[in-house]
Amino acid sequence: MDPPDFDDAFAARLDALFAWRRDVRRFRTTPLDEDALRACLAAAHRAPSVGNSRPWRFVRISDPARRDAVVASFARCNAQAAAAYAGERAARYRALKLAGLKEAPVHLAAFCDGDTAAGLGLGRATMPETLAYSVVGAVQCLWLAARARGIGVGWVSILDPAAVTEILAVPQSWRLVAYLCLGLPQEEHPDPELERHGWQPEDRRGAELYER
Amino acid sequence: MDPPDFDDAFAARLDALFAWRRDVRRFRTTPLDEDALRACLAAAHRAPSVGNSRPWRFVRISDPARRDAVVASFARCNAQAAAAYAGERAARYRALKLAGLKEAPVHLAAFCDGDTAAGLGLGRATMPETLAYSVVGAVQCLWLAARARGIGVGWVSILDPAAVTEILAVPQSWRLVAYLCLGLPQEEHPDPELERHGWQPEDRRGAELYER
Repeated sequence: MDPPDFDDAFAARLDALFAWRRDVRRFRTTPLDEDALRACLAAAHRAPSVGNSRPWRFVRISDPARRDAVVASFARCNAQAAAAYAGERAARYRALKLAGLKEAPVHLAAFCDGDTAAGLGLGRATMPETLAYSVVGAVQCLWLAARARGIGVGWVSILDPAAVTEILAVPQSWRLVAYLCLGLPQEEHPDPELERHGWQPEDRRGAELYER
Repeated sequence: MDPPDFDDAFAARLDALFAWRRDVRRFRTTPLDEDALRACLAAAHRAPSVGNSRPWRFVRISDPARRDAVVASFARCNAQAAAAYAGERAARYRALKLAGLKEAPVHLAAFCDGDTAAGLGLGRATMPETLAYSVVGAVQCLWLAARARGIGVGWVSILDPAAVTEILAVPQSWRLVAYLCLGLPQEEHPDPELERHGWQPEDRRGAELYER
């Protein structure tokens, strides 16, 4: 099998995909196409993983009671987070829309199975955190595959991971890595929402290359 | 600015990119094009990050003494890892090529700056590990941008992170997330090297979608 030729035009469109990927919190409630969702999960499963361990376990949450319980965990954690800011900054925090949990047609949780036998532990003796990192890579591939299909993804980290794990009744060896909202976006932008809504200035830190 | 139209043909080529991305350990020593490397770093900087914190700090290691010290850390950790397997499995481990540190023209370390002020801590009160996860997302974007330009990437996790951090003399608040080899690959495959070289069977675990 010959490798595909990824030409300059493809690289340029891929760069546009990175730019327009964004974290989405404003969703339309329209149900997602099931085949498109499965294509995104297939992309996730193509992610690199330490020792080819593929420890990701994706859970779709459709049960209304479980969805509501996750929304409640977000509300609690978000109120606590707001209380940690003072004065005008706290007001600005409360004005932000930080998740689209209620509107998003699909909730997807990504867990890391610490008991995975695949790969026989190869590659993670000295940096065991690479197992969870592998799940993050899968989430990133899913995210890009989704955006390429017009589907927006938002990563909700303002949650109590122990509460979410209990709500979802998953095996004890599974650790929550990411809780994702998926749906068609209400709006599209190439700049981060937190900059656009005045939470923070644009910041180039991180873009430089350090030399050693 | 209108969002680009990512059509079915682009989504199909993106899926091919996921399939041919691979972890590369067999590099040609040919130097990399500097513009292509900068384009990969720009893609990394487009990654999502918790609270738009962009905590990634990329370091290129060109100093021969530092490169040799990293190679030595790998050799030590790899010998220890081999010793943890028994009999025929240990022999099979030793026969694997798990890193291309000596040949790869570019070594790139990705750190997470725990002291980053960007984003004002938003989004990471309950799941602080999302800061390091943001760096993993950046690595994943870099990896895909590289492959789209014919550049192979290998993630080397068989290293002592404390030793590598000391070798690279980075600020104390920086934590090593990934050590990457970059270079033109000697060969291209759509299947994982660990399966091709008989370390493990193909395994579909992780590809399923759990429902709750």
